[in-house]
This record gives sequence, C-alpha cells and structure tokens, in this order.
Amino acid sequence: MTTVKPGCFITLEGTEGVGKSTNLRFIESVLEQHQIDYQLTREPGGTPLAEQVRELLLANRDEKVADDAELLLVFAARAQHLDQVVRPAVDAGRWVLCDRFTDATFAYQGGGRGLSRELISQLETIVQRGLQPDLTILLDLPVEIGLSRASQRGELDRFENEKIEFFDRVRNAYLDRAGSDPKRFAIIDASGTLEQVQEQIAQVLNTFLAKQR
Amino acid sequence: MTTVKPGCFITLEGTEGVGKSTNLRFIESVLEQHQIDYQLTREPGGTPLAEQVRELLLANRDEKVADDAELLLVFAARAQHLDQVVRPAVDAGRWVLCDRFTDATFAYQGGGRGLSRELISQLETIVQRGLQPDLTILLDLPVEIGLSRASQRGELDRFENEKIEFFDRVRNAYLDRAGSDPKRFAIIDASGTLEQVQEQIAQVLNTFLAKQR
Repeated sequence: MTTVKPGCFITLEGTEGVGKSTNLRFIESVLEQHQIDYQLTREPGGTPLAEQVRELLLANRDEKVADDAELLLVFAARAQHLDQVVRPAVDAGRWVLCDRFTDATFAYQGGGRGLSRELISQLETIVQRGLQPDLTILLDLPVEIGLSRASQRGELDRFENEKIEFFDRVRNAYLDRAGSDPKRFAIIDASGTLEQVQEQIAQVLNTFLAKQR
Repeated sequence: MTTVKPGCFITLEGTEGVGKSTNLRFIESVLEQHQIDYQLTREPGGTPLAEQVRELLLANRDEKVADDAELLLVFAARAQHLDQVVRPAVDAGRWVLCDRFTDATFAYQGGGRGLSRELISQLETIVQRGLQPDLTILLDLPVEIGLSRASQRGELDRFENEKIEFFDRVRNAYLDRAGSDPKRFAIIDASGTLEQVQEQIAQVLNTFLAKQR
C-alpha cells in the first residue's frame, strides 16, 4: 500500500477591495511555476449546494437575517465544501487554494456581527474536525482605501452594503486572529503598488514551498 | 408596565404518511373553538429565507449532501424561524402551532442519518437558548402503513426517497425521544380511523388547554 502525501491547504483572506481576485491569480501563477497540482475554490461556495447557500447569504433582502442563522449557513456551506472538495483533494495529494475560509467567519460574523468567538470555535470544531489551513495569506489594507476601491464595482451584496464601522471590526478581527497564529498567517501590506504586494506574496510562498520539500 | 403572558408553543411530529396535514387542520379547529389567537407555521421554513433553505434541503440532487451540512442547514433555518416568527409571536402572547421542530431533527438527522444526539443537543442549545415546545403531539404509525399512504402523493423529495430502514430509525428515534420527555409529548396512535385519531388529539388538547387557565 502506498501512502499519498496530503496536499497543502492555502487560504487567502481580506476585507473588501484589498485585491483578493488579482492576487489569487498571482498565487496560482506561482503554484503553476512550481508545477503544483492544485484546485482553486472559494467560500462560501465551492460545490453546487454550497454555492446556493452563498446566494442565500449574499442576497439583499427585506427580511432581517438573524446573526446565528447567518453563522449556521456559513458553516453548512463549509461542511459541504469540506466533504465534497477540500478533504478529497487534500487526501489525494492535491493542493487546495481557497478564497476565504473560517478566518473570514471569525472576522465577519465574529468581529463584524459581534458573535462570540467561543460559539464560532465550537462550530469550527464540529465541522473541521481538526483540519486547518497550512498557510493563510491575509491581505491587509486600511478599510477606507479598500472600500473606495470596491465601490467602483457593480451592485453591492448584503455584506458590501454594511457600514464602515462593520469593516473596521472585520479588519481588526482578522489582525487579531493573525496575531494569535503567526506560524500559519502571513500578513501582506496591500497598500503598496501591485508589484510591491506581489513581491511580498512571492516571498511568503517561496518560503512556504521550500519547507514542503 | 403590563406583562403579556407568553403564548404556548405546540409542535406536531411524525414520519411520512401519518396524517400530519389533516390533523394539523383539526388542531387548528380546536384552537379556533377555544378562540385562541395562534399562528400556524412549519419547519424547516416559516420565513422567506428559511423556506429557501427548506428548498435546498428537500431538492433531489446529484451531489451527495454531507450529513453535517444537512444538520447545519436545518438549524440555520430554525434560527431564522425562531428569530423572526416563533419568539416574536410567543412573546406577544400568541400561540404557535408548528409542523415539525427539533424533535424531527433528532429523528431524521439523529435516527435516520445516524448523527450523534450530543451534536444535535449542542446545536439545539445554541439556537433555542432554552426555548422548548410546551406540547408536542407525535402521530405514530408503523412505517409500512405510513409509506404506503405517502406513496399515493406526487413526486418524492430527497427525504421521502429514503429506504424503509431509514424511516424505521426515524420512527424509533421519535418514540425514544417521546419516552424520555413524557410530560411534553403526547403519542397518538395514528393507525385507527380518522375519528379515533382525532378523538385522541382532542383529549390531549383539552387536557392541555385546561392547564393553561
């Protein structure tokens, strides 16, 4: 019986307008340069059912969405995504590159909505059963700059429609979380030019890749 | 400041084909005879968002639905329903009559899918924060009879498409749960004629109503 070395699980995090999409493509290009077999995915979403849950979460609606309902929808989508995409890929030795994961839940539902970290941790334990990202790249930017960049997009979803104070709390929760797990997190200053940002990301990835040999 | 006496929360439970719809209308007629201001609702569902989650849960799909994802979707819908419908009604002194509630989760996801009771209890605590039905009417019927009745309906949903062993486990879990909380539960033998069944229900409701004076 041969055993496959599990794939690495890399997540990308950040608030609105930090340049997640552009830098996700850059991370892909680095993985491709190293001929790494990887799967790009996102949360909430990543499977047909989880994408349907994502739509429910993002839709602007007249009905007030209860904070705990939002949190449970996020973790329901995550449970499905882990079962159908992340675990099978990692177990088969493929890498997974995921646009947002549980750190976003601590940031948006914890920091933003004010739900307790203990509650989020409880659900994290239930759903992840010990699985954690091997590397999390956090793109960090003052909220005003990010929102002014993001405002140039089209229609805003239910989260993007939140006030600046909400995103301040989200950013602070991201930074808290990164501070409490510096081994896993790499904080990238996303306020510079694209070249400066990608230079930082390349350095983080190269260091990480060197450790996987 | 005047305080309103909270409304009672009555739930109706049972497997497929036990006569839930017909007997729900009968319970309504009894409440109306007693001039009780009540709200009829159901789970999963009861709010626009929770009904959308219900659709996701019931849809037949090629994608395998992870058991924990299903469980979290059920509790997400429940959190929303409690926040938007059940708590506001009960707090305003209205009664709530609900077609299925958490006992169904213990029966279908616990008994049927085999998820642990401890896990379901954990989510129950998070979402309900102590709120429990005041009365639960369980319509009980041998599974074969129920399924043969239910098979005369139209297209089957993702749950109705399960095998008979699944529904046996669901029924047993319902009976276990009723046995462990006999004060709240009334088990109705749903195998007799409609008149016999409704006579039992009327007796249960009259006893319950007499205690509320």
